[in-house]
Amino acid sequence: MKPHDYSKSSIGIFDSGFGGLTVMRAIRAQMPNEHIIYFGDTARLPYGSKSPETILRYSKENASFLQDLGIKVLVIACHTACSVALEQLRESLDIPIIGIIEQGVEEIARVSKSGQIAILGTRATISSGVYQQHLQKKLPTASISPISCPLFVPLVEEGYIDHPLTDLAVQEYLRPLKMKEVDAVLLGCTHYPLLHALIQKELGPNVSLVDPADTCAAKTKEILIEHMLLNETKSAPNYQFYVSDDPEKFRLHGKNFLNYPIEHVLQKPSS
Amino acid sequence: MKPHDYSKSSIGIFDSGFGGLTVMRAIRAQMPNEHIIYFGDTARLPYGSKSPETILRYSKENASFLQDLGIKVLVIACHTACSVALEQLRESLDIPIIGIIEQGVEEIARVSKSGQIAILGTRATISSGVYQQHLQKKLPTASISPISCPLFVPLVEEGYIDHPLTDLAVQEYLRPLKMKEVDAVLLGCTHYPLLHALIQKELGPNVSLVDPADTCAAKTKEILIEHMLLNETKSAPNYQFYVSDDPEKFRLHGKNFLNYPIEHVLQKPSS
Repeated sequence: MKPHDYSKSSIGIFDSGFGGLTVMRAIRAQMPNEHIIYFGDTARLPYGSKSPETILRYSKENASFLQDLGIKVLVIACHTACSVALEQLRESLDIPIIGIIEQGVEEIARVSKSGQIAILGTRATISSGVYQQHLQKKLPTASISPISCPLFVPLVEEGYIDHPLTDLAVQEYLRPLKMKEVDAVLLGCTHYPLLHALIQKELGPNVSLVDPADTCAAKTKEILIEHMLLNETKSAPNYQFYVSDDPEKFRLHGKNFLNYPIEHVLQKPSS
Repeated sequence: MKPHDYSKSSIGIFDSGFGGLTVMRAIRAQMPNEHIIYFGDTARLPYGSKSPETILRYSKENASFLQDLGIKVLVIACHTACSVALEQLRESLDIPIIGIIEQGVEEIARVSKSGQIAILGTRATISSGVYQQHLQKKLPTASISPISCPLFVPLVEEGYIDHPLTDLAVQEYLRPLKMKEVDAVLLGCTHYPLLHALIQKELGPNVSLVDPADTCAAKTKEILIEHMLLNETKSAPNYQFYVSDDPEKFRLHGKNFLNYPIEHVLQKPSS
């Protein structure tokens, strides 16, 4: 009997909601042949304000839902879930797992010249200290300014991308950086790249903003090659979308994050 | 055998999180002998941005959790849950149910002289149209301006009660009322009373702001008397708090809404 060819299985991605579609967009751009299954836990979003225990439980449920669908690799696109659950998921799952945080750390360490770095994230991501610890290990002399920006997600979800309210929130959150010589800022939440222009305007043109989505996609490709799991066929890829809340809302709203129309979205049966 | 005396059972209250504690505060003030069990669904908040199907499912789970604990009456303190689930819960439960929306309608109809009324609420509450329908039935000639204010909850949860950002959000949301002769505004979400001062400043002193919590408590008392369920004993009341996320966070944060220290909070076992 020929062994099963797992290279034709899908890449699995989960996020608390829509934001992880920016990671799917990067994966799609770099690996146009790959099948992808995306799960957004829209009935329980946001994760950023919840406790580590609850985030861990949700992350395990999401990972096991995707694993039951037969994925070959798992990408945790949610920074909050990644900051809390990555290690424990690696212990319990037997497929490779790519965490967006590790890739963010790689990229910001590469980009920063001065070693003066700011990390923007949700309250849970920043309080977990995971970004700070990984970055400190990678760049022991770095000076790190962690800033939690809990209003950015609701502002983006309201569509207030270029609105005086969002401008004011950006000024408010970034005020502590005015006195520092920061040269690289990590956008540590998948919603934040949508505020790229406002954040860049506030910090000026000499500061690099790092969105880990591209590095995350590159790492996924590297892992697939290493495990001989890259899909070499040239047939059209199959994209499946699952959510825990209203599929239609996800279909309509999600295309702004994915930059590509979404045809069908299925609702995950409630556990 | 003597029939069981249900008057010593507890009043049950549920909300998506903390806000319903303002309703508990009003109930406690009007009925200081009553035992109360409060459930806040903090692991799944907020409800306001989710679909009717999901809100209905959560509401049924919350109601059945409280009913299993042996409550004599149920108060739905969450406007969003109430707008979606009140009728269906009344059909399936055999205890009296008080919905905060009905009480809000009673109160605003009493307060408004001109019949020019605004309703502020979450996106789900406003889109449900429930407030508008009930109010139109009560006051057929009323002119109603429904306004969804989805940023108010995250702003209050951030503690930005008296902050330029919140000021700007209030101005933004209330701008459509500038051209109207509104004399009464319903605060159709349990978080909004915390923004009372800012909203009043924006609308001026001649507009009445209606918080349905007091009317909701009065109605609860009326129902208990009608069903001979009022607790006439003078012993100290017992307050139980359950949440679905971190109990400690609820204990610390909740006292600002309840205006009274919270001693013990238990975590509801996850379903």
